[in-house]
Amino acid sequence: MQPQPVIAVLAGNEPVHGLAALEQVAEVRITGAAGLPEALAGADILYLWDFFADGVRQAWPAADSLQWIHVPAAGVDKLLFPELVASDVVLTNARGIFDRAMAEHVLGAVLHFAKDFGRAAAQQQQRQWQRYPTTDLAGASVLVAGTGSIGRCTAALLTAVGMRVQGLGRTARTGDPDFGTVHASEDFAPVAGNFDYVVLAAPLTPATRKMLGRDVLAAMKPTAVLVNVGRGALADEAALEDALRAGKLAGAALDVFETEPLPGHSGLWELPNVLVTPHLSGDANKQLPALAQQFADNLDAWKAGRPLMNVVDKNLGFVAS
Amino acid sequence: MQPQPVIAVLAGNEPVHGLAALEQVAEVRITGAAGLPEALAGADILYLWDFFADGVRQAWPAADSLQWIHVPAAGVDKLLFPELVASDVVLTNARGIFDRAMAEHVLGAVLHFAKDFGRAAAQQQQRQWQRYPTTDLAGASVLVAGTGSIGRCTAALLTAVGMRVQGLGRTARTGDPDFGTVHASEDFAPVAGNFDYVVLAAPLTPATRKMLGRDVLAAMKPTAVLVNVGRGALADEAALEDALRAGKLAGAALDVFETEPLPGHSGLWELPNVLVTPHLSGDANKQLPALAQQFADNLDAWKAGRPLMNVVDKNLGFVAS
Repeated sequence: MQPQPVIAVLAGNEPVHGLAALEQVAEVRITGAAGLPEALAGADILYLWDFFADGVRQAWPAADSLQWIHVPAAGVDKLLFPELVASDVVLTNARGIFDRAMAEHVLGAVLHFAKDFGRAAAQQQQRQWQRYPTTDLAGASVLVAGTGSIGRCTAALLTAVGMRVQGLGRTARTGDPDFGTVHASEDFAPVAGNFDYVVLAAPLTPATRKMLGRDVLAAMKPTAVLVNVGRGALADEAALEDALRAGKLAGAALDVFETEPLPGHSGLWELPNVLVTPHLSGDANKQLPALAQQFADNLDAWKAGRPLMNVVDKNLGFVAS
Repeated sequence: MQPQPVIAVLAGNEPVHGLAALEQVAEVRITGAAGLPEALAGADILYLWDFFADGVRQAWPAADSLQWIHVPAAGVDKLLFPELVASDVVLTNARGIFDRAMAEHVLGAVLHFAKDFGRAAAQQQQRQWQRYPTTDLAGASVLVAGTGSIGRCTAALLTAVGMRVQGLGRTARTGDPDFGTVHASEDFAPVAGNFDYVVLAAPLTPATRKMLGRDVLAAMKPTAVLVNVGRGALADEAALEDALRAGKLAGAALDVFETEPLPGHSGLWELPNVLVTPHLSGDANKQLPALAQQFADNLDAWKAGRPLMNVVDKNLGFVAS
């Protein structure tokens, strides 16, 4: 009989979903960041249940047997330190789990601005009855930056409600099943002015960091709305705040920020044309059973010697399937 | 050569769209409510451009030649006074024009509550970063009361985003192309508890007045959300406010009210689980060119002796096609 794999589980305050089932098939070491080096010694697998936690790099020298890290999150940007990238340790993520919730969040954000519910709420506080203009999504154009599973699910949902969707990705192409036309990232500024909405749903990598910079902001329609559900650092946040204050774009729904939690002193909180949400578009809490099941399935594959699902290309920074 | 038809146009403060074209094909008498009797004398057609205006019933005795009234609005409940209903005067409305904007408004309202953007905005005002639970539309159930063109467009859009839609109409049926199952209005209370969302998009008639009463409210899920884009009086507004205060339902997006503008003293303004919008879901202003074209097309039909489009069944209170 094969020995059971040893799994170090970096857990935070939240209980680890599916733990009992896991303990049936593995030696499980639950730990916080402080105990991580000890838990990693001799461990085959690191399960980053508390995926917001730091501490993996610091504990890295103790990882003497590590073969696989699983992160139950979509973005792995915080984890990709050089020693991990250079190593043979396989990294997998939770690709797919958050797609639908995030796509719906984007659609809700788009409608929030199309129907100007922010103005409605402000008028409601003043008990003020005044009609105002709205716009329709039917026929409106949207550029979705990010052609991974989140971007594709978002594109499909926005297409389903009658929007004209195009994509922005690493390489320009046409005939994409979800986007039709995909523009190359380096053409972001030249094409940005063609769209009523711009959605950031890309992974954060050296290539995408601050992809929405002053040049893109300057090119956007003044009536355009930005939705960011990817990572805060996909945008030049200072430039974005300037553009929003100056009316260079009409509004922004921001779920992610350069620093999270968004600091109390940030000027973004107070802008009437910004909807701030606290990094919840994927609603991880709601996904806990699916996230636990996804890891259990991958663990089955690992134990059986089958290929793992959702292997991150550590040099690119995302699952490159 | 046939004499040109005489059209009395009841206009308010807004310019009459398409007036120049109209004056090419008809004798046009623009008037306010005060001059309506004089304008109606000898007029063939009454064009209620200012469809919110009163005064038609008062001026009715002067309508000695009237054959047709056109209302560039969807709801004609305010106009159906007994003398008009009993007369041979044909009534047409703007069926179809507002459908898409209203359907999008409903979808936006549904997402506003599913993603709890009201809570996000409240937290934003306090510069407070706190995740909260959200729900998905995928698989959520919605009952759309009203199987006319607005209800059907709404059903199609909500279906397109993955919701499970059923209808509520005059007669129960299955296999409806837009709703699948349509429940009979008298079964509203028995079925209301099966749905996560209830949308009111019915015309206001004696049969539908206060269709959403205390019995239906008591039957709804405490997690359910109401969206009313039809008429305020489709709901028992006092009972609705009570239910919202007591948490008997989770929230309501209300675009229409028993009295409009919603009076300043209404308790609905202050409820945190209510989104008040000022009767703008159809965004009539945006539709002015389409509304003018629709009347011009119907006028062509009338002059050519062809059947008019969108003839209201004055006894039912809506276009019964």
